[in-house]
Amino acid sequence: MRRRTMASVTANRVDFIEALKRIKQVVGPKGWTNDLESMLPYMTDWRGMCGTEALMVVRPKNTEEIAKLVALCAEASISIIPQGGNTSLCGGSIPQNSGNEIIVSLARMNKVRNIDPDNYTITVEAGCILKDLQHAASKAKRYFPLSLAAEGSAMIGGNLSTNAGGTNVLRYGNARDLVLGLEVVLSDGRIWNGLRGLRKDNTGYDLKQLFLGSEGTLGIITAAVLKIFPEPTEVCSAFCAVPNVAAAVALLELARSESGDAVETFELMPRLMIDLVIKHIADCKDPLSERYDFYVLLELVSTASLDIRLSERLELILSNAFESGLVIDAAIAQNETQRQAFWKLRENASESQRIEGASIKNDISVPISRIAEFYDIAWIKVAEMEPNIRLVAFGHIGDGNLHYNLQIPEHSEKNAFLARCEEFNGVINDIVLEMGGSISAEHGIGRLKRKELARYKDKVSMDLMKTIKNVMDPGGIFNPGKVL
Amino acid sequence: MRRRTMASVTANRVDFIEALKRIKQVVGPKGWTNDLESMLPYMTDWRGMCGTEALMVVRPKNTEEIAKLVALCAEASISIIPQGGNTSLCGGSIPQNSGNEIIVSLARMNKVRNIDPDNYTITVEAGCILKDLQHAASKAKRYFPLSLAAEGSAMIGGNLSTNAGGTNVLRYGNARDLVLGLEVVLSDGRIWNGLRGLRKDNTGYDLKQLFLGSEGTLGIITAAVLKIFPEPTEVCSAFCAVPNVAAAVALLELARSESGDAVETFELMPRLMIDLVIKHIADCKDPLSERYDFYVLLELVSTASLDIRLSERLELILSNAFESGLVIDAAIAQNETQRQAFWKLRENASESQRIEGASIKNDISVPISRIAEFYDIAWIKVAEMEPNIRLVAFGHIGDGNLHYNLQIPEHSEKNAFLARCEEFNGVINDIVLEMGGSISAEHGIGRLKRKELARYKDKVSMDLMKTIKNVMDPGGIFNPGKVL
Repeated sequence: MRRRTMASVTANRVDFIEALKRIKQVVGPKGWTNDLESMLPYMTDWRGMCGTEALMVVRPKNTEEIAKLVALCAEASISIIPQGGNTSLCGGSIPQNSGNEIIVSLARMNKVRNIDPDNYTITVEAGCILKDLQHAASKAKRYFPLSLAAEGSAMIGGNLSTNAGGTNVLRYGNARDLVLGLEVVLSDGRIWNGLRGLRKDNTGYDLKQLFLGSEGTLGIITAAVLKIFPEPTEVCSAFCAVPNVAAAVALLELARSESGDAVETFELMPRLMIDLVIKHIADCKDPLSERYDFYVLLELVSTASLDIRLSERLELILSNAFESGLVIDAAIAQNETQRQAFWKLRENASESQRIEGASIKNDISVPISRIAEFYDIAWIKVAEMEPNIRLVAFGHIGDGNLHYNLQIPEHSEKNAFLARCEEFNGVINDIVLEMGGSISAEHGIGRLKRKELARYKDKVSMDLMKTIKNVMDPGGIFNPGKVL
Repeated sequence: MRRRTMASVTANRVDFIEALKRIKQVVGPKGWTNDLESMLPYMTDWRGMCGTEALMVVRPKNTEEIAKLVALCAEASISIIPQGGNTSLCGGSIPQNSGNEIIVSLARMNKVRNIDPDNYTITVEAGCILKDLQHAASKAKRYFPLSLAAEGSAMIGGNLSTNAGGTNVLRYGNARDLVLGLEVVLSDGRIWNGLRGLRKDNTGYDLKQLFLGSEGTLGIITAAVLKIFPEPTEVCSAFCAVPNVAAAVALLELARSESGDAVETFELMPRLMIDLVIKHIADCKDPLSERYDFYVLLELVSTASLDIRLSERLELILSNAFESGLVIDAAIAQNETQRQAFWKLRENASESQRIEGASIKNDISVPISRIAEFYDIAWIKVAEMEPNIRLVAFGHIGDGNLHYNLQIPEHSEKNAFLARCEEFNGVINDIVLEMGGSISAEHGIGRLKRKELARYKDKVSMDLMKTIKNVMDPGGIFNPGKVL
């Protein structure tokens, strides 16, 4: 990728200053700021990492403005950091400190352009906050299933460009799977209009796939046509104690087959995670009276308007699971309040880890059939390296995805612990790779995992990615320093 | 794209002949033929179109052989037509008569490499026949949902490279949606190994998407990891008479919401189609005693091993549909034989059209909310052009996809009718475009619809496709004359 030297900046200085001036004209006085204090929230990410330099923040109000400013940036070799809700966990939406970047916030492009309940589609702009999108679908008696902890501030454009995962992947797939059409501004400022709401379209290459999951490095997603679904009519939730991870996987299989694939949630939680949440988060309590090593939050969902007695089915599944020893204790939510209490435990996992102290995070996936094996092997290796380390491995095991987080040993020094990050992650990632897994299941690469990607991804894949990047963004203006 | 002139062929003659010799060595004596009679089935497609020239047909037995022969072809500028079961409806797998092409048949690479029921994945080679793949999944008590008329000879590599649709898209998606990983030979002979069976993997660009649906123009798919599902435990099938297309769409909505999205099949069939099938195909009869204008084959499927009384649900749905006038008559299959009798009507649609005489085929999609409107508007326009034309529009309206076929008027001359193909398709495609639809919903582009694609696809899309093609296959050796 292109790297600007100061010399080249100087050589193009006039173009450069002229371009910035014209960008300001394009977005109008309310559409930009270069005041450091105002820019700070855009330069600082969710984890507190900070890109200390940016030329300015622009907040265009429509696709045409973006197209114009991208064309100007392309001409003057100014780089662009596209930004939605800035909730990346990998530093994917902040500057890289080249001093040559503008942040393009999609926040003002937050409209729902159209909703077509009969076609089960919704058309939204990239800056639409995920929660607002869910509500818009719900108002039309439809359901948009993408759901994740940051949904109150994450924007759909960011969700799509990072192919976000979350808690509903098991049944509905990742963000990519929810997309029928996209509108994208290309690196030369042209607009690609692929906003079609079709279930089937085999007219040539599926171009939208290029932009989904490429983290803003190939184009700026400005709008999307998304799939929506019939609304859930019944949700049954159980908080189950399981003897071990292998039993959790077997329970998943049992629940899937006996429920007719009605499993929407299947989240693994270890005891330590529950302890941390109860310790640090107000109004959380253990749903079961005894203590166990592992828990699964299991939810069945029906969208049938005819009565299908889902709760009976859940009870049958649990009673079969008890009999075969897969579940050793369980609580079924009797109402929405109880269900929310289960979810509160799961949703505060990261927050309670943060309060407890330093942790080293891993977002891995392996084939579901190997997840129990992975859990144990990785734990043995990590414990050999640091016997007092605390494992807080939780997450979407229905998708083969674990947040395999390592909590600092009690009474240890933070910096010394964090200095070993690469060492621990190296051991974990080697096992992941050996099992045919992924070192970034849902969080993406951003700026944080670039080095790991270069190390763990095969050469042919890296070559192909670079080839695509070079041809789609020959000037290297889109989100430099991310992914590749 | 590159075009070889005879002059350039002559200039490279030695390389060229040497390359062919070495390709023969790579695949061994049983792996090639240049005998015209033996090559004929490979050069002639399902619709009887024939590519009259090919240098030879090679039948490599593994990925390494393909990699080697592609490298040789790249060096000597020999083009490659990848071929599976050769069941394309668009001439996608036959030569284009440049005299500079070899056909690479994947037929000998037909192994199931691995099946992992707990991970719900199956790993197969590209030459595996779709029906065999379904059986392999079934043996492991799993279900591979891709299903289409040609499944007895179509091969999975072709299904994936054309992103095949079929009768189960409504519930399980197109072929693309069933893929977790791919192995592909690139245009320089390198092998890209993306054979991972992960539900979540956000490590960079999703490269497999490039090869899915690009009809062999960007690489040769040699193997795939595919999703498999719990086996259906109950299938309930109804043959419903509906008053019109709008009622069919409303019935879909009713069935989806009342069944809890258990609708797996939703196929529209007009009276004329039923008449043609009964006239031309042995042992077919009308399931209903009265005649109606339109029918829907509706199937609900459950994968629950616990009893969920699906048949009761179907009866309830139909009784609600009767009440609201969406269904005016219906037969429910009481056993598998009766169900097969329903399917026989649907599956013989194309065959009975072929026997009846010439027809002009269209494979279109529009948003489901506009399909009834499309049906009528297009019919009015077509009937204005030729009042005696017979409309046989059937298909997967649950996906917004209609095979909007025009049957020759009775007692008309075939060639004169077929000569108007472009004229009729132009009118239909203009309406499709205006409604935000697709002129090729599931059949792809191949060689037959290239001109239409160039006419109907927007310039930015065409530019992007050409950019991708040029960079992925700079020598233009993969399936020339197809898509672009």
